[in-house]
Amino acid sequence: MLWPERPDNWRRRAEPAQQAFAAVATAIARFEPVSIGASARQYARARGALPAAVRVVELSSDDAWMRDVGPSFVVNAAGALRGVHWRFNAWGGLYRDFRRDQAVAHKVLEIAGCERYCAPFINEGGAIHVDGQGTVLVTEQCLLKRNPSLSRGRLEALLERYLGAKRVIWLGEGVIDDETSGHVDNLACFARPGEVCLTWSDDPHDPQQRVSKDAWERLMAARDARGRRLVVHKLPSPGPLYMTRREAAGVVADHAIRRLRAGQRLAGSYVNFYLANGALILPLLDASTDGAARRLLRRVFPRRRIVGVPAREILLGGGDLHCITQQQPKRDARRRRADQ
Amino acid sequence: MLWPERPDNWRRRAEPAQQAFAAVATAIARFEPVSIGASARQYARARGALPAAVRVVELSSDDAWMRDVGPSFVVNAAGALRGVHWRFNAWGGLYRDFRRDQAVAHKVLEIAGCERYCAPFINEGGAIHVDGQGTVLVTEQCLLKRNPSLSRGRLEALLERYLGAKRVIWLGEGVIDDETSGHVDNLACFARPGEVCLTWSDDPHDPQQRVSKDAWERLMAARDARGRRLVVHKLPSPGPLYMTRREAAGVVADHAIRRLRAGQRLAGSYVNFYLANGALILPLLDASTDGAARRLLRRVFPRRRIVGVPAREILLGGGDLHCITQQQPKRDARRRRADQ
Repeated sequence: MLWPERPDNWRRRAEPAQQAFAAVATAIARFEPVSIGASARQYARARGALPAAVRVVELSSDDAWMRDVGPSFVVNAAGALRGVHWRFNAWGGLYRDFRRDQAVAHKVLEIAGCERYCAPFINEGGAIHVDGQGTVLVTEQCLLKRNPSLSRGRLEALLERYLGAKRVIWLGEGVIDDETSGHVDNLACFARPGEVCLTWSDDPHDPQQRVSKDAWERLMAARDARGRRLVVHKLPSPGPLYMTRREAAGVVADHAIRRLRAGQRLAGSYVNFYLANGALILPLLDASTDGAARRLLRRVFPRRRIVGVPAREILLGGGDLHCITQQQPKRDARRRRADQ
Repeated sequence: MLWPERPDNWRRRAEPAQQAFAAVATAIARFEPVSIGASARQYARARGALPAAVRVVELSSDDAWMRDVGPSFVVNAAGALRGVHWRFNAWGGLYRDFRRDQAVAHKVLEIAGCERYCAPFINEGGAIHVDGQGTVLVTEQCLLKRNPSLSRGRLEALLERYLGAKRVIWLGEGVIDDETSGHVDNLACFARPGEVCLTWSDDPHDPQQRVSKDAWERLMAARDARGRRLVVHKLPSPGPLYMTRREAAGVVADHAIRRLRAGQRLAGSYVNFYLANGALILPLLDASTDGAARRLLRRVFPRRRIVGVPAREILLGGGDLHCITQQQPKRDARRRRADQ
């Protein structure tokens, strides 16, 4: 993870977000080791806010989205752990200076002692979801927009080269008003090979319904890398949720990286959970839907502990639990567990 | 190690020192893993200057003396690796703001995943040398000056508590004009239990002779923790060496941390070598004495490769190879090799 600090994205000098990130790190640390990178300036503050079980390392970044700026870990044919370093352009240019974010994956891999594959196209960890058996989920909205000079076929070849993907399932758009321009990790993810969770809205007046229905149709028509049809679990959407006037007022607008407006729709989604060893860390976003999401996920993941963590402060910054984390396999972990 | 950068201590914006540090890291990396900490600003430069075998981590510091600001690793009674974090005051106040240096040991231990003992007195790794069997070498000049409120007996009790030292051998002064005010690691060190290397001058006009003779007498009179007398190997001093006008002119004097004067004596000493696994990395300081030092060390360490590295640029900054390194034992290393 990375420690949030920029006051032009996180309200009230990032203090509420820091509390929320600390709660996430603490929740995950019950199940697996957690490291969090903090800038030199924030190091002591981060160290003081986190339990001893969480490792804090100095690591500067432009913001705190480890999913997108960190490496995507892969295992090569010989069983060795490697990291893919994607080219990064701040989600198409959400802020101008992203040189520190561009270096995060390299620094993480140095600390981990892992060799690096430098991918020659723009991508983020949040723009892909894999089943570990050769299937990858992406969205047209995100991947084609990031790489206007690359064809769909060329992108599929690159995803095969860097992720071992034999089958790319193209969804259309991402969640409504998602600033990442359509990251799949807020829309849909694999629960395990052959099973997908999809964010869903039953409200015909919510534009999210159209987006989710389109994704559902594509998923139902798809075959995965092993030729299977997919089972799709519909996860209720929270809200719709909107940024309040008070929340928007806490963000420093001077060198604003985006307009944080009161009334702006927030791209909340329960699909943005984090899978830890033996657990599912669930973003709590809306008291009226949190329970239904938890119940559904308990059915889909019967062998995992479902641990809810309040996540609105993270959502205000533009993402959620999956976006602020990046899992790192054990060096000798060659095979996934059955109940991934 | 740490990557040097401050222009008010290292001439020509630290570029020659960076080359020298890179050569040291490269030499050590032939024998054991090396990590080097660099500030966010210098990270890319450090990474580019170092071979892939050297791990570069982001780690800010006020200067580059890992021996003094890093943790001193110890093994506790249960065989677990721990780090001692000494209190640090920039060698009695050589520069005013040393908050980053104060945090280095903690950050190193976080990366290493090692628990920390916080020692309640001022000390630096360069102010102690141990034999691994309960004996520690220190100087009165350094330890008493750093801790004016602590008696010799109290300091011995603290060294026992934090290093397991059963016997403290007090030498008097350190090397002439040593800015550390008498670090023992520039004067004398253990070659192995029962054997000490001592920097030596045969020139009766050199004030170093008086200092080395005093140390020699104390060492000859001493018993180590196991009651043994010590064998002392006299290592010839280089020089005397002096800073040239040109060298002094390359240092930014604006916010000078010390007066770097042309003609100033440099505290060069071959005792300031670094012991890597299977090797001794020797500072090359003076063509007229390097050979004699190498020959003597080859006799004292017959089973180690002696690898010389040009070290004048490091000496200009105020220390040498031992000062810029800090060894970190393997986690499961409970016993030293016979030929330590």
